[in-house]
Amino acid sequence: MNEAKPLAGARIELLDTTLRDGTQAEGVTLSVRDKIAVAEALAAFGVDLIEGGWPGSNPRDADFFEAMKGRTLPGGARLTAFGATRRRDLAPEDDPSLAALLEAETPVVTLFGKSWTLHAREALGVSLEANLAMIRESVAFLRAAGRRVVYDAEHFFDGYAEDPAYALATLEAAAEGGADTLVLADTNGGRLPEEVFAAAAEVVRRFPGRTVGVHTHNDAELAVANSLAALRAGARHLQGTVGGYGERAGNANLTSLIPTLVLKYGAELKAADRLEGLRELAHFVDERANQTPNRRAPYVGDAAFAHKGGVHVSAVLKNPRTYEHVEPERVGNRRRFLVSDLSGRSNLLAKLAEAGLELAKEEAGPLLEEVKALERDGYAFEGADASFFLLARRLRGAPEPFRVDAFRSWTGGDAHGRWQAEATVQLTVADRSVHTAATGQGPVGALDNALRKALLNFFPELEAVGLADYKVRVLEGQEAGTASVVRVLVEMKGSEGRWSTVGASANVIEASLKALGDGYAYALVRAGLA
Amino acid sequence: MNEAKPLAGARIELLDTTLRDGTQAEGVTLSVRDKIAVAEALAAFGVDLIEGGWPGSNPRDADFFEAMKGRTLPGGARLTAFGATRRRDLAPEDDPSLAALLEAETPVVTLFGKSWTLHAREALGVSLEANLAMIRESVAFLRAAGRRVVYDAEHFFDGYAEDPAYALATLEAAAEGGADTLVLADTNGGRLPEEVFAAAAEVVRRFPGRTVGVHTHNDAELAVANSLAALRAGARHLQGTVGGYGERAGNANLTSLIPTLVLKYGAELKAADRLEGLRELAHFVDERANQTPNRRAPYVGDAAFAHKGGVHVSAVLKNPRTYEHVEPERVGNRRRFLVSDLSGRSNLLAKLAEAGLELAKEEAGPLLEEVKALERDGYAFEGADASFFLLARRLRGAPEPFRVDAFRSWTGGDAHGRWQAEATVQLTVADRSVHTAATGQGPVGALDNALRKALLNFFPELEAVGLADYKVRVLEGQEAGTASVVRVLVEMKGSEGRWSTVGASANVIEASLKALGDGYAYALVRAGLA
Repeated sequence: MNEAKPLAGARIELLDTTLRDGTQAEGVTLSVRDKIAVAEALAAFGVDLIEGGWPGSNPRDADFFEAMKGRTLPGGARLTAFGATRRRDLAPEDDPSLAALLEAETPVVTLFGKSWTLHAREALGVSLEANLAMIRESVAFLRAAGRRVVYDAEHFFDGYAEDPAYALATLEAAAEGGADTLVLADTNGGRLPEEVFAAAAEVVRRFPGRTVGVHTHNDAELAVANSLAALRAGARHLQGTVGGYGERAGNANLTSLIPTLVLKYGAELKAADRLEGLRELAHFVDERANQTPNRRAPYVGDAAFAHKGGVHVSAVLKNPRTYEHVEPERVGNRRRFLVSDLSGRSNLLAKLAEAGLELAKEEAGPLLEEVKALERDGYAFEGADASFFLLARRLRGAPEPFRVDAFRSWTGGDAHGRWQAEATVQLTVADRSVHTAATGQGPVGALDNALRKALLNFFPELEAVGLADYKVRVLEGQEAGTASVVRVLVEMKGSEGRWSTVGASANVIEASLKALGDGYAYALVRAGLA
Repeated sequence: MNEAKPLAGARIELLDTTLRDGTQAEGVTLSVRDKIAVAEALAAFGVDLIEGGWPGSNPRDADFFEAMKGRTLPGGARLTAFGATRRRDLAPEDDPSLAALLEAETPVVTLFGKSWTLHAREALGVSLEANLAMIRESVAFLRAAGRRVVYDAEHFFDGYAEDPAYALATLEAAAEGGADTLVLADTNGGRLPEEVFAAAAEVVRRFPGRTVGVHTHNDAELAVANSLAALRAGARHLQGTVGGYGERAGNANLTSLIPTLVLKYGAELKAADRLEGLRELAHFVDERANQTPNRRAPYVGDAAFAHKGGVHVSAVLKNPRTYEHVEPERVGNRRRFLVSDLSGRSNLLAKLAEAGLELAKEEAGPLLEEVKALERDGYAFEGADASFFLLARRLRGAPEPFRVDAFRSWTGGDAHGRWQAEATVQLTVADRSVHTAATGQGPVGALDNALRKALLNFFPELEAVGLADYKVRVLEGQEAGTASVVRVLVEMKGSEGRWSTVGASANVIEASLKALGDGYAYALVRAGLA
């Protein structure tokens, strides 16, 4: 009994809730403009349903739905508004939250109700019978207004474990009200895949005329596995978020589930055609949500196909299948070889060859020593290819494109919140020196402006080169008593693309100057100007 | 067939490979001193086997084993050294890598060999028969030297999918050599739980006299589920890392697996008694590995039991089971209520009541408005309880403990890498002003020193208060053309514990001053001095 149903060829509907459950993650906030941009990106990627927010719960979500009126999303994606069943003491037509759902004017509504006796009794304070009526009547009210209703059975698996008959009765109430999709939620994220499989299989068996869906959370790091378990049991509607953002430990990560379903199970998803855009989508959402992209994210992270151990690198150079479960290009990612003191010489040489610098084997030893020494001082070359390239070039005795003789950067302010920042730089190229100054938004911005201004005297070609990103990391003292070291990572852009550099020092300005200096030096070397 | 075996009461051996596979993660580096400290923490926590490194592959790992000679780990934990089967052209007694394993003098050796025909042929370039001999002879050599051998069957599941008979033959060779534990590895991290279950069940059936183990990677976000699948199929040895650090997307996360096995499956782990130390262990490893703790980590992250949605907060206040899958205290974590513009009034009032500030219901509205406005400017109060407390206090009209009238901070350097930082602060308390200056490691350190020095004139009690942590985040411009905003989070410590504050500005010095100012102001308010 409860045999797995094949997923090959199965059509699965995707509902993305990044804009609703995703914003319940700590630290995630999206403005109305962000939400519109993310909705459009999701639609273009091939998501079927986009849950835009909970219009009854906060004004920003209501503003979002207002702003979306009249807009058509690409790819036939449809918006859905999220909300709760009616209040216990109000008829559906008098309930302000249901009214807000209708005012959102979305073709689909995701309505959640209680499946777990504990929640009906303690969170809502209603009888089990009253809860069933609330579900049935709320769904019917939305159906009568012409909405498709996706019914989210909150805490379904917890409820099913404690009182299966009641949990099933809540689904029955939603079905009677007219919901075509019954979504089983592991709201607290603590259920196990075998429990999810068994319960979902039972629901699929009992509701042959409805689509069964699944909505999981990651509190036991099983959200992806639990989603797959429900789909294998016959669910055909999947909810999750880009990057797995969501309340507490997060939601099921669509960025992992989508490629697994397409590439490993052969399921039919509308997004299957756009899989090469997966990494870009993930990074776009991170940027909008102001989240540092998770480097270790499966499929889409910078490290997902990054090889560090020497044995791995030499095997991947022979055949990538040896240490890659899928081809990185399928999800828009790329293979990387990392340089660190764990590296063998093959990492170093492969990496430099990528950048067009052919090194003899005997030169790799001293380079590796230098990398080790600098990493002890707080540098990290794994994310700073351009600094690594310059380091190798320096070791071969190549001259520096310029030298910074002195710098100064200051910031001052008063009680009225007015502040200023200014920097000076003295710089020499060949035998000519300049001494210049600039202001900026802050001490680092001023320093960058002054450095760039000084260099433009010699290299007008740098006009097209500029700072694209700047990151600071305070490395906590490794041993008691030593001062913290600051590591600065800089990304620069120019007509030849983007490159990254690193600087480290106990002083953030000094570390920034090193990283910025490498950034401009790399631009000059690549352009053949030094 | 292949029925799941019950895990309740099953004794599972834990092998932690944070010190070996964990350091293959991008950005993770551990010094010898770090490794010793982590090994001791793992042992005290109740890990059975601690894989310390690969002595044949890099000097640091060899140094670690040298340093561990003669040390006894707490709790009966044993060290294991990791290495490969002999080279194809050398007898075991002539193989330098096997010699390095013996020189490590660990009671246990983890030896890995090839299970997948692709790897034998392409990575090693040997015949399938020769690979079997390499496995058998290498294990036998280590056994003859008195070592317990844990045999890691690299790529077992990939090999089993392509050529099951050969994959099983490699295990047979290891068993013949004398390995008592056969570990099935999903090295590329791309296998599915049902595949892992079926293959592991078959191995358990075929090798009744051996312990079967599992080692998974997270490339499809299934490492935890795949480990559980193998254990449910009868494996009784589990490998993973703290925090899931490891090559590419990482290894199976023991920080999630341990509590799930103990609290949900009732398995017998030595670490079960120390579960309350789980969060501390995870944070200790992060600190040593210089990794920002993953806020969304299941069980141990700061957000694992953090409630943001208003509905969640009001239910949890009634009964925590409504939105928590386990009690946070069981894993050494704690419940948190987050404040953001998604918050309802119950979040705000609950949070302030925690801090001893009772607010009337009608005061919550304006506070929520102010929180929203500041979050739009780049503030984030979720991680800055002390700044939130001061904000609420200000709205009630409480006077500021002090006022900064002006500040200046500068840094300068020369071509020899010599640099200096100095700051000045003008500050008023009641009607008295001071104007003072201090130097520091960098512009922010100098500013903190000057601010603290100025305040000590008025409040000698601040002697015990100081900066514990300082974090900078550059918020990328939300819309093109706007300047980036810098958010600074400061953690301070004093005799009453630790507290966090936030500042935001386009200028990092300005943002730092705001966060530092709140930090000292909070200390004064809590001590009843303002």
